[in-house]
Amino acid sequence: MRMYDIIMKKRNGGELSKEEIRFFIEKYTAGEIPDYQVSALMMAIYFQKMTEAETFELTMAMAESGEMLDLSGIHGIKVDKHSTGGVGDKTSLALTPMVAACGLPVAKMSGRGLGHTGGTIDKLESFPGFSTALTTEQFMENVNRIGIAIMGQTADLAPADKKLYALRDVTATVDNLSLIASSIMSKKLASGADAIVLDVKTGSGAFMKKEEDAFALAEEMVKIGRSAGRTMSALVTDMDQPLGNAVGNSLEVVEAIHTLQGKGPVDFTELVYALGSEMLVAGKKANTLEEAKDMLIKVVREGKALDKLAEFVAAQGGDKRAVYDTSLLPEAKENMEILAPQEGYVSKIICDEIGSCCLMLGGGRETKESDIDLSVGFILHKKVCDYVHAGESLATMHYNDKAKADAAKERFLKAYTISTEKPQRQLFIKGKV
Amino acid sequence: MRMYDIIMKKRNGGELSKEEIRFFIEKYTAGEIPDYQVSALMMAIYFQKMTEAETFELTMAMAESGEMLDLSGIHGIKVDKHSTGGVGDKTSLALTPMVAACGLPVAKMSGRGLGHTGGTIDKLESFPGFSTALTTEQFMENVNRIGIAIMGQTADLAPADKKLYALRDVTATVDNLSLIASSIMSKKLASGADAIVLDVKTGSGAFMKKEEDAFALAEEMVKIGRSAGRTMSALVTDMDQPLGNAVGNSLEVVEAIHTLQGKGPVDFTELVYALGSEMLVAGKKANTLEEAKDMLIKVVREGKALDKLAEFVAAQGGDKRAVYDTSLLPEAKENMEILAPQEGYVSKIICDEIGSCCLMLGGGRETKESDIDLSVGFILHKKVCDYVHAGESLATMHYNDKAKADAAKERFLKAYTISTEKPQRQLFIKGKV
Repeated sequence: MRMYDIIMKKRNGGELSKEEIRFFIEKYTAGEIPDYQVSALMMAIYFQKMTEAETFELTMAMAESGEMLDLSGIHGIKVDKHSTGGVGDKTSLALTPMVAACGLPVAKMSGRGLGHTGGTIDKLESFPGFSTALTTEQFMENVNRIGIAIMGQTADLAPADKKLYALRDVTATVDNLSLIASSIMSKKLASGADAIVLDVKTGSGAFMKKEEDAFALAEEMVKIGRSAGRTMSALVTDMDQPLGNAVGNSLEVVEAIHTLQGKGPVDFTELVYALGSEMLVAGKKANTLEEAKDMLIKVVREGKALDKLAEFVAAQGGDKRAVYDTSLLPEAKENMEILAPQEGYVSKIICDEIGSCCLMLGGGRETKESDIDLSVGFILHKKVCDYVHAGESLATMHYNDKAKADAAKERFLKAYTISTEKPQRQLFIKGKV
Repeated sequence: MRMYDIIMKKRNGGELSKEEIRFFIEKYTAGEIPDYQVSALMMAIYFQKMTEAETFELTMAMAESGEMLDLSGIHGIKVDKHSTGGVGDKTSLALTPMVAACGLPVAKMSGRGLGHTGGTIDKLESFPGFSTALTTEQFMENVNRIGIAIMGQTADLAPADKKLYALRDVTATVDNLSLIASSIMSKKLASGADAIVLDVKTGSGAFMKKEEDAFALAEEMVKIGRSAGRTMSALVTDMDQPLGNAVGNSLEVVEAIHTLQGKGPVDFTELVYALGSEMLVAGKKANTLEEAKDMLIKVVREGKALDKLAEFVAAQGGDKRAVYDTSLLPEAKENMEILAPQEGYVSKIICDEIGSCCLMLGGGRETKESDIDLSVGFILHKKVCDYVHAGESLATMHYNDKAKADAAKERFLKAYTISTEKPQRQLFIKGKV
């Protein structure tokens, strides 16, 4: 078998066999096939697409390119959740303690943020002392003891995907549905869960700008997961404006805590309950979504969800007092109000621009090596469809550097459109696959 | 300017600007852009094609990536000839002394053979002592003194093309019309001729299997050359069976000598006269093609063409006695007749297979580093449309190794199709662009 023939076959519109896909992934991961042949293949795939069978085989080959996590030592059905990422997405922070409080074991691998989207691990590190650097043994033991643990992705999790994604990222071959789906699913399958609930974002802050593309991606991933014998469901949800009101690491942690106390923003609360219900049903803790939602509301009302967060934070070395007293979390030295320049309805917020503003304040990573300022960010007071008076605050900006803040404020204002006409309210949850 | 954006633009069907093409070629040649980005761009070009303007800019950028040979020190109009290559193509060997004998200065750079096609330099090295390793000064001086010199391509001739072609060759991105045309023309433009006559081959032994593709390539190259201010013409000629009767280095030299004596095979003689006439008209040595052809016939009849070959061989260190006594050229130790297994008409010869048979005997290069046995090859006695009796000889095989010869003979026979019906005779010269 020769890589040249594989490129030629795909270029000419042929369907690659399981053996051909395994050959190329294995040899590429081992460094025996050069980047320049793989990037040519990726571009050929961009134009010729991949069939369902090819996409599945690629996913499995990448998943099996490293260690496949064995979660059989954990009792019960293991349900994972994955979001395609966006701005203000602190879902895991509220969702995982909530479902854990309902008795569903949470054994989750998470990533760090890059560019305009944040990462769960960065946010969790707002808790002084908190660490996700667990061994697999500690991880399993924590789940069995307190029902929840979150660890960083191991270096050996789907290494083929890591290498391939880095190459696609610099060769304009990222945006192909099959390649995106196989990249996400290879890591999820290698993470060992029995069931996976997906949250596919759509809108200006999401990778999938168009709703139809988000649904197509959701369907592709659900198909892959089911072919691999996993229980799957996916929600397509809005990321045309930031999720909730908080954008910025420790500010988002505070908002997640509020949500665990039952006083979170409406859109974010709706999302957490919807995803949590899917997880509880997939994990056979509830028979119907309605029953599941009642369970979630109950653990919030009784304070068990918040206590589970505290227990989780403490188990991973963090200061659990911060769960009950958020003033112990990182706080920026300064804040300022960003005032509306005119009156009217907020008709549009360019979502990824808000993420980029947070990045400008120091709250995100430009490159993998960047340090993050966990304290900075924004609390939005006005979102799409809200009415605002001229001079009224659109948002509070938390910052440590005046020059950066001034630049971020200017950019922030450009991301908002204020119109005289009230825009139509869009559904927050677009649908389920 | 970023290579990423250039890939993306082409991927999305955009037209690259002159600046973008210059940027990518200059940085790639300098090693500042990695192979994996360039191979992705090549694959995007394969799918999205290039416009006439892009193709021209790419050609010029590659031509100017190294030294542009300055032939102004040579008196008169410099006319170059280029063939896209094939099996038994000894055209330059007969053509260049012929036109030089007519007073047209010949200052030609040639290449070596690879795979099933031979190279002019290898063939010339059949003359004991002959060398094409001339300095540019020697080269120019020889042309001014005796009217003809042939040198190997300098390392600095269009280095961008060399690097790009090597990459395309291993990433299944060779067969795109614009890329093929720009690769050939970049070297021709850098070689400094005022006029270029192209011989574009079509058929089973050519790169362009289909006649329409050969015409399209010819048109593309003629356009590029004219845009660069050169006088251009192109013939599309048959390579559906080997050219002439001889295949193999020194055997082809003998056939070229016969042709310079006016006793060459009909098809080969027709080609040499047709190309030679184009060259003489382009070089203003004749006003019409008819007048030019008469000049060629005259120098052959008077022996001046053959004497020019001898002068040329001697000037480059070769033994000119071999021109008049071909037994001084390399000869294989053994030969055998390949007999027709049945009677009928030769209806088809898979041309590149004959080239591969010669390669099997040791007469070609598998890789750039291979040594060549100049003495081996075939003299075909039967070509397409000829009638053959069972047991009559199709060809004489010249060889030095019995085991290789047996394998080559078997393969040779498979390349011939003998049918009861006489096939239609095809035009040898398909047309002119």
